[in-house]
Amino acid sequence: MKRISTLFMVCTFSSILSAQQALWNNGEIVSPQVNPDNTVTFRISAPKASKVEVEGDFLAPRKIDTPFGIQEAPGKAELKQTTNRIWEYTTNALSSELYSYHFLVDGLRMNDPNNVYQNRDISTISNIFIVGGGKGDLYKVQDVPHGNVSKVWYSSPTLGMKQRRMTVYTPAGYTESNQSYPVLYLLHGAGGDEDAWGELGRAFQILDNLIAQGKVEPMIVVMPNGNGAQQAAPGIGADGMPKPQFMNPKTMEGSIEKAFPDVMKYIEDNYRTINDKSHRAICGLSMGGFHSLYISALYPDKFGYIGLFSAAINKQTKGENTDVYENLEQKLDTLFKDVPKLYWIGIGSTDFLYKDNTDFRKLLDSKGYKYTYMETDGGHIWKNWRIYLSEFTQLLFK
Amino acid sequence: MKRISTLFMVCTFSSILSAQQALWNNGEIVSPQVNPDNTVTFRISAPKASKVEVEGDFLAPRKIDTPFGIQEAPGKAELKQTTNRIWEYTTNALSSELYSYHFLVDGLRMNDPNNVYQNRDISTISNIFIVGGGKGDLYKVQDVPHGNVSKVWYSSPTLGMKQRRMTVYTPAGYTESNQSYPVLYLLHGAGGDEDAWGELGRAFQILDNLIAQGKVEPMIVVMPNGNGAQQAAPGIGADGMPKPQFMNPKTMEGSIEKAFPDVMKYIEDNYRTINDKSHRAICGLSMGGFHSLYISALYPDKFGYIGLFSAAINKQTKGENTDVYENLEQKLDTLFKDVPKLYWIGIGSTDFLYKDNTDFRKLLDSKGYKYTYMETDGGHIWKNWRIYLSEFTQLLFK
Repeated sequence: MKRISTLFMVCTFSSILSAQQALWNNGEIVSPQVNPDNTVTFRISAPKASKVEVEGDFLAPRKIDTPFGIQEAPGKAELKQTTNRIWEYTTNALSSELYSYHFLVDGLRMNDPNNVYQNRDISTISNIFIVGGGKGDLYKVQDVPHGNVSKVWYSSPTLGMKQRRMTVYTPAGYTESNQSYPVLYLLHGAGGDEDAWGELGRAFQILDNLIAQGKVEPMIVVMPNGNGAQQAAPGIGADGMPKPQFMNPKTMEGSIEKAFPDVMKYIEDNYRTINDKSHRAICGLSMGGFHSLYISALYPDKFGYIGLFSAAINKQTKGENTDVYENLEQKLDTLFKDVPKLYWIGIGSTDFLYKDNTDFRKLLDSKGYKYTYMETDGGHIWKNWRIYLSEFTQLLFK
Repeated sequence: MKRISTLFMVCTFSSILSAQQALWNNGEIVSPQVNPDNTVTFRISAPKASKVEVEGDFLAPRKIDTPFGIQEAPGKAELKQTTNRIWEYTTNALSSELYSYHFLVDGLRMNDPNNVYQNRDISTISNIFIVGGGKGDLYKVQDVPHGNVSKVWYSSPTLGMKQRRMTVYTPAGYTESNQSYPVLYLLHGAGGDEDAWGELGRAFQILDNLIAQGKVEPMIVVMPNGNGAQQAAPGIGADGMPKPQFMNPKTMEGSIEKAFPDVMKYIEDNYRTINDKSHRAICGLSMGGFHSLYISALYPDKFGYIGLFSAAINKQTKGENTDVYENLEQKLDTLFKDVPKLYWIGIGSTDFLYKDNTDFRKLLDSKGYKYTYMETDGGHIWKNWRIYLSEFTQLLFK
């Protein structure tokens, strides 16, 4: 047995070199290595380098000079050369979290060639790893029942597009049952797309794990594309392989809000949903929080649960559909006539949208409209949005 | 309008630096740039480098010395420094194809920081691009109706696993119709998983495009995981984030073949399938070709269309389930009693499995069993497997 499979490996090794460099590079280097004491060791082979650094969100942030003044950047640490070719660095013990990083080799940014686990945030790809034993366990794939994830194409007559893509998570048990389920619409931020919450937000793992723990009701989670001029995530639409952009056209000028019934129609036509206000939730981060605010105000009879995560309140532009944003107070009056079961606001204390959110809360306070508020450390970052999703979903449909 | 959105961008820029480096790096560098004459320009900012190369499958392969003797490796070309920081290289005109590449900066392998489009082949991540105007157009996302793609979890009692993941492509129109469809089971190679055909094989684009052209019948395509000890692709199963391996346990010792009815049961229970031999096909590359051979021989009444792409014939190991591989000739006699509508074999002329496939064809010839044979240039590479899929699917269910 051993003889044959070894032979196969050797044959394959020698002859598929041109296609599969996998066996050839990087030998047995392990990086990152999460150690039992929650320190993490990074390694890279860089025999000719004179300086190797790791830059990541687990290191104390640095102040750097930018065209916009002094700003915070991810922390940086130097790796030490341990042999001719291997450089190494071990962190302090880290708290349980999903972290991202990259290397700087003589100042040039590159990903860790020994870590295939990556995230794309707009046009930047970073490596990721998870330290368990706490919050990070929610973001890990655990041995619990998993929901199915589909990338589906729907038609949006309102946007004049025959095909747009969205991500649909159906909870474990959906396929085997005849039951109907409540629905959460989960919206991404500027520069994101229908893949963002699954990849950067670890939404599937958070849902799988919290449902398995009995803390979250089984629900369908719908992640549409919030860029109104885009069919799908970069590389998946008919626009080829463009460089992903931070702000896309038709995002905050009313189109997405007006076209939202097209998303709901596809879901309610094709999935076993419970079609009433108390079984529909909507939430989103940054631009998606902005969309959630205005969609719930525009269709006051649709959503019983509304979540604004670091919402980009008042960031609308002007255009032919921006009546969506007019008379917000009146719209909120209508919404709160039949009081939502949950109006939830989360923001980080150093988020650049903090003041806008404070002003918005003042408005709600002045009207006597109740909401649930969560303030975390930190700014406008995925770490916070994963926390908000974990908290918000536990309050739904109960 | 402009004022507000610019303001938003500046605010965002300055405060989310720590999370979204997207706006910060790489400025306006375009790489790769497919030029109108089908030459391709690569660029990278590397101010401190003394040598920058691009290594890719569009350059003439090199002979290199390895522990296994002289072998072929991807071609390499040097970039020239055009400014202080920018290095550049333009290829000759390339034929229409999907290509992959990476950079070598002072010998250190890194991906192109300006190209977010990547493929993972086992544990190696490469950048990709497509040159259109010919075969490459099949691999591009075109403005045609798209099929939905789902990652679903099924139970495999035969493997003793409650949850295993597979990829299911349903053709455009499936959701809207009540029609039943034929099914193609499409199997990956050693080191692959249920994501491989979609990512490296461009299976969704090939199917979408050929169905839209009327050359392929609309069909459901099922891509299971062929590593019997694995729940799912690396990072998606409960084994955490391991380094992906070339050969996984329980792949070529009979388990996958014996457990295949579990895959079919899930599909036939949950999708609108036509459940007879003339509406079922099975094919695969390398190890998946090997699986296709033995699965079709083991269940002779199930598959009317069988495709072996660079099949790893005779590479079985020994174990408790390897009766699957015994008495192959007898099994083929049974299979060919009710002659399959198509028995298809494809291989590259320099594939290391060429001789094994020739021997297998001799066996079929000696028995008088008819098959369709396609021989291409090149070896054991995805370029060939995309061609074989494009050819094979056009012959199905007609």
